[in-house]
Amino acid sequence: MSGLTYAILGCGALGGLYGARLQRAGFEVHFLARSDYDHLRRHGWRIDSKDGDFVLPTVHVYDRAGRMPRCDVVLVCMKTTANGLLPSLLPPVTGPETLVVTLQNGLGVEEDCAAVVGAEHVAGGLCFLCSNKRGPGWVHHLDYGKVVFGQFQDGKDAPLAPSPRLRQVAADFAAAGTPSELMDDLRAARWRKLCWNIPYNALCAILGADTKVVMEKEASRQLVAAVMREVEAGAAACGKPLPPGFVGQMLADTDAMAPYQPSMQLDLAAGRPLELEAILARPLRAAQAAGCPMPRVETLWRELAFLTST
Amino acid sequence: MSGLTYAILGCGALGGLYGARLQRAGFEVHFLARSDYDHLRRHGWRIDSKDGDFVLPTVHVYDRAGRMPRCDVVLVCMKTTANGLLPSLLPPVTGPETLVVTLQNGLGVEEDCAAVVGAEHVAGGLCFLCSNKRGPGWVHHLDYGKVVFGQFQDGKDAPLAPSPRLRQVAADFAAAGTPSELMDDLRAARWRKLCWNIPYNALCAILGADTKVVMEKEASRQLVAAVMREVEAGAAACGKPLPPGFVGQMLADTDAMAPYQPSMQLDLAAGRPLELEAILARPLRAAQAAGCPMPRVETLWRELAFLTST
Repeated sequence: MSGLTYAILGCGALGGLYGARLQRAGFEVHFLARSDYDHLRRHGWRIDSKDGDFVLPTVHVYDRAGRMPRCDVVLVCMKTTANGLLPSLLPPVTGPETLVVTLQNGLGVEEDCAAVVGAEHVAGGLCFLCSNKRGPGWVHHLDYGKVVFGQFQDGKDAPLAPSPRLRQVAADFAAAGTPSELMDDLRAARWRKLCWNIPYNALCAILGADTKVVMEKEASRQLVAAVMREVEAGAAACGKPLPPGFVGQMLADTDAMAPYQPSMQLDLAAGRPLELEAILARPLRAAQAAGCPMPRVETLWRELAFLTST
Repeated sequence: MSGLTYAILGCGALGGLYGARLQRAGFEVHFLARSDYDHLRRHGWRIDSKDGDFVLPTVHVYDRAGRMPRCDVVLVCMKTTANGLLPSLLPPVTGPETLVVTLQNGLGVEEDCAAVVGAEHVAGGLCFLCSNKRGPGWVHHLDYGKVVFGQFQDGKDAPLAPSPRLRQVAADFAAAGTPSELMDDLRAARWRKLCWNIPYNALCAILGADTKVVMEKEASRQLVAAVMREVEAGAAACGKPLPPGFVGQMLADTDAMAPYQPSMQLDLAAGRPLELEAILARPLRAAQAAGCPMPRVETLWRELAFLTST
């Protein structure tokens, strides 16, 4: 075990699960919470997971970053809608050797972190995870769970080998019970994840239906597949083509998955801000700039922008 | 005045307004009603119109086509979702000289009538009309009102001059207070109308907002314009290009229009069947067959198909 210390920014369904598992495995973990602060301070975490339930009655939790210690690794686990706060959240918890790993969805999230701490201190992780918050300090992990880590490429197309520290983070995740992988083309991995995130987040939100219902009905199933093929074309136009057969695999994986309400569906229903910029707008602009218009993605994005406009 | 007799099939916001005006002008008019039958038999029509309110306490109304007399002109005013009934509705009211004029929206509605009475007996009319039902026997006419009539071209691209009887129908409408025009390319006129009907019907339904709200918000306004440009491309691919500047004119006309809830929005909210086949699916298939995929229209169609699937 590495002995690295971890800061977890954001106590949602993702930060809660991974942070609690690291602490359970013996790592020193510091959580930054917002609405869950009081509950976590008194009761700690309750994790209901398909891989085993556990509780952590006592955790290090903070209601502002300025009170946290500097850590070896910072895991950025908030919604991207809060990324405007990174300039105030990251400096207190980062030192010269700190690695900031953003586990957020979408494109441009490493850039958001790099603008604060510098590109060489940034990596990203893609979470293949079905997990929801049930209540304060209470995570329900339904399915999957793997994290794929890669170094931030800073606008360059070339592959980039993971740094020793990033390798250690991946090993720590594995030691804590979360399967992990390393890959040297994070940007390509982000496009692969978007192939799932764009259709299911957008359509489950717009149609008010979970993944199972969306996959069962012919009209929406075909729309999911058509949107995936658009994202496939967008990824290729951006120089990060999806592997052959990837779209079919994503559809089959989702068929095999427990019914799931993606975060965008839950956020829309609850009146919370949606991650439209990272998950839809940035990929759309990137593809358009590369000559691939993605009109179906544009349609979904504009519909959601309407539904969340004030 | 021609002395033609009129059968009105469908007592909605369209059949009610135009039929009541014809009767007010002295024509013999016979209404086929479904849910409004009892009310119309007892109380007749109440028409609230921006061009002048009026009531018709006594009307010829029927609850089945078999009880109606044969008429010189049959105006098909039902929703296209009821077109499966045309084989039983049209024969009782049509004779060898009868002209069947469908005032329905979308593509393929003349074909639906021609399959029953023969192409040479069919014409179509495009209603530029904002009108809603307020209750049984009660129409609220908000804005516009013109009808553009044309002869059914039966799959041929060439223009076709209006028959003498169709000219008479147009003159009767004008005499009854409804501005009317004749044109010799009905298929082209249908594509022009789709340029409005597709974006507003679909988006107002999906977004749950009237035309004014959709036009005020940037995200939806741009989506409307993008969908219109797709329909423009589809029309051109099908050999019926829109006139130059038409899309801009449609947007400006809608800006100038009173806030309006298109029928598809009202139907979705009320749980009634939507006119998806005529307004979205047939134009989409026609454009696709002509090599124009219309992906935004396809997206809207599939979303609505999902929302109305059982």
